[in-house]
Amino acid sequence: MKERLRTFFLGKRLEDSRLSDEKFNILWGIPVFASDAISSVSYAGEEILLVLIPVLGMASYKSFLPIVAAIIGLLGILVFCYRQTIDAYPQGGGAYIVATDNLGEAPGLVAGAALIIGYILTVAVSACAGAAAVTSAFPELLKWKALIALILIALLTWGNLRGLRESAVMFGVPTYLFIFTMLTLIVVGIVRYASVSYTPQEAVIAAESSKDMLLFVILRAFASGCTALTGVEAVSNGVPNFKEPAPKNAKKVLYAMAGFVCIVFFGVSVLISMYRIVPNEEATAVSQLAEAVFGSGSALYYVVQVMTVVILTLAANTAFAGLPLLMALMAQDGYLPRQLIYRGTRLNFSNGILFLFASAALLVIAFNGDQHLLLPLYAAGVFLSFLLSQLGMVLHWVRRRGSGWKTKAFVNGFGTIITGITLVIIVIMKFLQGAWVTLVCIILLVLLMRTIKKHYDKVRDDLRISSPEEAVSLMGRGRVGKLILPVQNVNRSFVKVLNCAKDFEFDEIEFYHICSDEESAKHLQAQIERLGVPGRFVHEVTHYRNTEEVLMRHIEAEHAKLDEHQHLTVMMPNLVMRSRWARVLHNQTTKNMIRRMEKYRNVYIFQIPYII
Amino acid sequence: MKERLRTFFLGKRLEDSRLSDEKFNILWGIPVFASDAISSVSYAGEEILLVLIPVLGMASYKSFLPIVAAIIGLLGILVFCYRQTIDAYPQGGGAYIVATDNLGEAPGLVAGAALIIGYILTVAVSACAGAAAVTSAFPELLKWKALIALILIALLTWGNLRGLRESAVMFGVPTYLFIFTMLTLIVVGIVRYASVSYTPQEAVIAAESSKDMLLFVILRAFASGCTALTGVEAVSNGVPNFKEPAPKNAKKVLYAMAGFVCIVFFGVSVLISMYRIVPNEEATAVSQLAEAVFGSGSALYYVVQVMTVVILTLAANTAFAGLPLLMALMAQDGYLPRQLIYRGTRLNFSNGILFLFASAALLVIAFNGDQHLLLPLYAAGVFLSFLLSQLGMVLHWVRRRGSGWKTKAFVNGFGTIITGITLVIIVIMKFLQGAWVTLVCIILLVLLMRTIKKHYDKVRDDLRISSPEEAVSLMGRGRVGKLILPVQNVNRSFVKVLNCAKDFEFDEIEFYHICSDEESAKHLQAQIERLGVPGRFVHEVTHYRNTEEVLMRHIEAEHAKLDEHQHLTVMMPNLVMRSRWARVLHNQTTKNMIRRMEKYRNVYIFQIPYII
Repeated sequence: MKERLRTFFLGKRLEDSRLSDEKFNILWGIPVFASDAISSVSYAGEEILLVLIPVLGMASYKSFLPIVAAIIGLLGILVFCYRQTIDAYPQGGGAYIVATDNLGEAPGLVAGAALIIGYILTVAVSACAGAAAVTSAFPELLKWKALIALILIALLTWGNLRGLRESAVMFGVPTYLFIFTMLTLIVVGIVRYASVSYTPQEAVIAAESSKDMLLFVILRAFASGCTALTGVEAVSNGVPNFKEPAPKNAKKVLYAMAGFVCIVFFGVSVLISMYRIVPNEEATAVSQLAEAVFGSGSALYYVVQVMTVVILTLAANTAFAGLPLLMALMAQDGYLPRQLIYRGTRLNFSNGILFLFASAALLVIAFNGDQHLLLPLYAAGVFLSFLLSQLGMVLHWVRRRGSGWKTKAFVNGFGTIITGITLVIIVIMKFLQGAWVTLVCIILLVLLMRTIKKHYDKVRDDLRISSPEEAVSLMGRGRVGKLILPVQNVNRSFVKVLNCAKDFEFDEIEFYHICSDEESAKHLQAQIERLGVPGRFVHEVTHYRNTEEVLMRHIEAEHAKLDEHQHLTVMMPNLVMRSRWARVLHNQTTKNMIRRMEKYRNVYIFQIPYII
Repeated sequence: MKERLRTFFLGKRLEDSRLSDEKFNILWGIPVFASDAISSVSYAGEEILLVLIPVLGMASYKSFLPIVAAIIGLLGILVFCYRQTIDAYPQGGGAYIVATDNLGEAPGLVAGAALIIGYILTVAVSACAGAAAVTSAFPELLKWKALIALILIALLTWGNLRGLRESAVMFGVPTYLFIFTMLTLIVVGIVRYASVSYTPQEAVIAAESSKDMLLFVILRAFASGCTALTGVEAVSNGVPNFKEPAPKNAKKVLYAMAGFVCIVFFGVSVLISMYRIVPNEEATAVSQLAEAVFGSGSALYYVVQVMTVVILTLAANTAFAGLPLLMALMAQDGYLPRQLIYRGTRLNFSNGILFLFASAALLVIAFNGDQHLLLPLYAAGVFLSFLLSQLGMVLHWVRRRGSGWKTKAFVNGFGTIITGITLVIIVIMKFLQGAWVTLVCIILLVLLMRTIKKHYDKVRDDLRISSPEEAVSLMGRGRVGKLILPVQNVNRSFVKVLNCAKDFEFDEIEFYHICSDEESAKHLQAQIERLGVPGRFVHEVTHYRNTEEVLMRHIEAEHAKLDEHQHLTVMMPNLVMRSRWARVLHNQTTKNMIRRMEKYRNVYIFQIPYII
C-alpha cells in the first residue's frame, strides 16, 4: 500500500545501472546549473537601486550602470577561475572539495557550511522573488506571498524527488523561453525609447544627497548586487552530473551561462536606467519595466511575469541539483548524518532533497516571504566559499607545478584577491542587516559537523577489527548463561516461550514474577512446577503498581553481578495483533521494557512472537 | 528526570494501602458529588426562560415557576428512587451496573454509553457556563470565552491527577460558600423587593403569543430545565468512594444535595420571576439578578460571580470523580481499553481523567465555548440512563422478593414511568437541536464497546489453557532450529553476535549477506570462514538499494518452509548509542526490520546489544 502510493507519486523504483543514464548534456545542463545566475536579473538590479535611491534620488541612475558593469566584470573573472577548477577536478570540484584538498579540514568545513547555507538561501530567495513576480501582476495576492513561495518550493521538491532526468525535462525548455523573452523586452524597450521619446515617470523621492556618503553608498549597492553571482559554483560542483566528456561539457555550460547573464543583466539594467524605474513594495523593477515597455495589462507583460516566475523556480532547482550531492559527499566523509549518502528509489539523494525542502520552507515562513530581508544573508556565505575555493586552487597549482602552473596560479591568485576584497566589502556593508546571521550559522554548522565526525570515528574505531587474527582471538568459548523469564500467568504465550527456553538449554532458568500478594505467587509457582521445566521461581511483591520499574531494577541488579564475558538472556513473549487498531487495546509494556533493557551490555533480548 | 517532573506536578507515588485513606466522609462528599446538581441553578433557570420569552414575552413569568416546581418534584422522585439503589448496590450502583445486572448486556452498554457522554458533557457545559459567569462580569473577555473554559478544564484535570483527597480539599470549602452566598442573595433580594418596591426593568421583547403553542412551549422549556437533574446519578455510582458505612453516608449526601438544590433553585427562580430578568448573550440570568439585588459593580455582585464560577468548576469535578471510576468498571468487564483499569501513581484512574480532559476540551473547541449549543445534547443521555436504571431496579426487586419488595418495586416503577415520560418529552422537544447527536453517539459507542469486548474475548480464548494437563500437553520436545544471521561486514558487533550464536548450538547457521556486487560477497565469505564457526554463507545481489525488502522477502520465504512446530531464529546486533542525539546519526534499519519480522509466528528475534 505504502509502496503503491510511493510509486504513484514518485514513479517506479530505478535500478542502480540507470544512474549513468540520468545525466545532463549541454542543452539540459544549462537550465539546471545556470538558471540561478540568470534568474538573478530579476532581483539583483532592484536590490542595487533600493540602496541607491533613498540616498541619491534620481542621481542614482548615474552610478547604477557602473555598478552593474563591475559585477559583470567580477563574473568574468570568476568564470576564468572556475574553468581551471573544472579541469583540475573532473570528479566535481566544489569549494568543499577544493578547500579540503588543498587547505585542510577546517577551511574545507567552512567552505562546505557556507555552501550549504548558500544553497538553502538560493531556494528561499528565489521562491520569494518568484512570489513577488506573481504579486506584482496580481496585487490582490500580496497577503498570500509567503504561501505562494511555499507552494513553489513544494512543487520543486516533488519534481526533484521524482528524479534527475525528469527535473531537467520539466524545467529545461522554459529557461530558453525566458532568455528569449528578456531579449525581446530589451530590443523592444530600446527601440521604443529611441523612437517614441518615452517620458519616464517622475520619481517622487526626496534625495538627501551627501557627497561624503557617495563611496559608502556605492559600495553598499555593489554588495547588494553581488547576489547576482551565485550560480558559478554549482557548475563546478556538479561536473559528475554531466554526460561524458563531463569537464568539457561543464565548461561549455559555464561559458553559456556567463554569456547569457552578461547580455540579459546588462540589457535589463540599461532599460531600467533609461525608463527611470523605481522599485517599490508592490511591484518589482522588472514588472514595472515590462509595464512601461509593453503597456500595463498587455499579454506580453504577463509573459514576462510568468517567465520570471519560471526562471526563479529553475534557480531554486539549481540548489536542488547541487545541495544533495554536496551533502552526500560530506556525509561520505563523515561530517553529516549517514542517511544523506543513500540514493532513494529514483536514484536521487531523497533525504538531502527533503532536508532542503524543510529548511527553505522554514526560512520563508520565518521571514514571511520577504526576499529583501533574506538577500543580505545571502552573498556573504557564497563569497566566503568562492574565496576558499580560489585560495585552494592557488595552492593546488603551486604544489603540483604542472605545465603552465604559473599562469594558472596567477589567474586563481587574482581571483582570490578579487573575491577576498568583495567578501570584505559585503561583510562590512551588510553586517548588521544579516551577514552576521550567516557567519554565526556557518560557525555553528562547522562545530556540528566536527562533532558528527568525531562520533562516527568513535563508532568505527569501536567496531573495527584490524586483522583476521584479532577477529579469531575475539571468538571466546562462552557459556549459554542464565535466562530470566518474566511471567504473569500460565497461558499459551508463556508456554510457547517456555518451550523455546527449554530447547535452548540455558545454564539456569529463573521465573520472575511480580505481584501484589503472596497468595497468587504461590499459586503461580505450583502451576509452573507442574510443567516440569526445572527452574527457580523468584517473586517480588510491590504495592506501588510499578511492575516495569521493579523488573528493570531486578535486571539491573542481575546485570551488575556479571563479569565482562558473562551474559544473561531475557526472554519475552511478544503479543502481536494482526489488526493495527487492536494494538491500542493492549499495554505496550513488552515494547517499553525491551527499549529500556537495551542499555545493558550483557543482556540479550529474545522475543517470541505470539500472533492473535 | 521524567520521574522527578512527575513527582513535582503530581506528588509522590502512593502505596496501594493508601487507597482506603483516600475516601470521602459526608462533609467532603457533598461538594464532590452534589455540586453538579447544585450548580445547575446557574443555567437551568436561564435555559427555561430562553425558551419561554421569545414566544410568551412578559407572560413567561407566569409559566416559569410552575415549570421549576415540576423539575424540583422530579428531583424528589429521583432521590426516593436512588436511595433504594444505594441500598441494593453498596458496591456502587450506577445505571451501568444496575442495567447490566438486571436487564442484560445491551441495555447495560446503552446505559454506560449514555453515562459516559453525560459526564463528558457535564465537564464541557459546566466549564462553558463558568466562563459565561466570568464574561458576564467582564464583557471585554467575551471573545476569550472558549479559552477560559479550556483553562478551567485543564486546572481540574491537574487537580484530579494529583489524587482524590486533595481534590476534595481543594474544592470542598467553596461549595458551602456558594450555598451561603446564594442564600444571602435570596434573602436580600426578597427583603429588598418587599421593602423598596423595586421596579423591574422593562423587557423590550415583542411577544408573538399564540395560545395553541402554549403546551408545546412549556414542554420544551421543561425539557431545557431538566438539565438541572444530572447530579443524582453520581452519588449512587460513587458509593465505594465514601467512608464506611458507605451506603449510609452516600444516602445522607443524596438528601443534603436534594435539599440544597431545592432551596437554592427555587429561591433563585422566585427572584428571577420577581425581578423580571431577561437573559441575553452578554450577561447570564444570575449575573443580572445579582446586579439588580446588590447593585452593579458592588463587591457582593462579584462575590456571586466568583462563587458561580467555583460551583461550576465543582460540577465539572463531579464528572472527574465519576467517569474514570465508571470507565474502569467497564474496562474490567472488557468493554473499554484495559489501560483504563490501572490506577496511576496517585491511586486515581489517571488514563480516564486524561480521556475526560481530551474529550471535553474537544467539545468546548468544537462548540466555541457556547453552553446554549451544548445543553440540548445533555439531558437526553442522562435521562436515558435514569430510565434504564429505574427499570433495572424494578426487575431487581421483583426477582429478589426481599422484605417489602412490593413497595420498593412500586417506587422504582413509578420512577420508571416518570423518567420515561420525561425522556420522551426531551427527545421530541430537543431532537433537532442536538438530542439526535447524543443518540447517534450512544449507538456508535455501544457498537465500539461490543467490538472491543469481542477482541478481548478472542485474545483470552486464544491464550487460555483450561487445565494443568493441557498445559503439560503443550510442552513439546522441540528443536533449537535454524539461525539466520544477517551480516554486512565482520566487525566487533558481528563477532559478539557470532559468539552468542555459537554458544547456543543452533541446528544450522546461515550467514545472510546482501550486496551490490559478487566481489565483495566473496571477500566477506572468506573473512567469515576464517572465524571457524561452521555455517552456510548465502548472499543476494540487488541493484535497487532495497536491503530491507530483500531481507524481508528472504525471511518470508524461509518462514513459509517451516511447519507449525518448527521455528527459526534471526539474530541481530543492536547498536545502542549512549547519547540520545547520536541516534539520529544512525539508520534505524535494525529496529525497522524487527518491527516487520514480528508478524511471522515462528520467527524468533534475538537481539544482542552493542553499546557505544
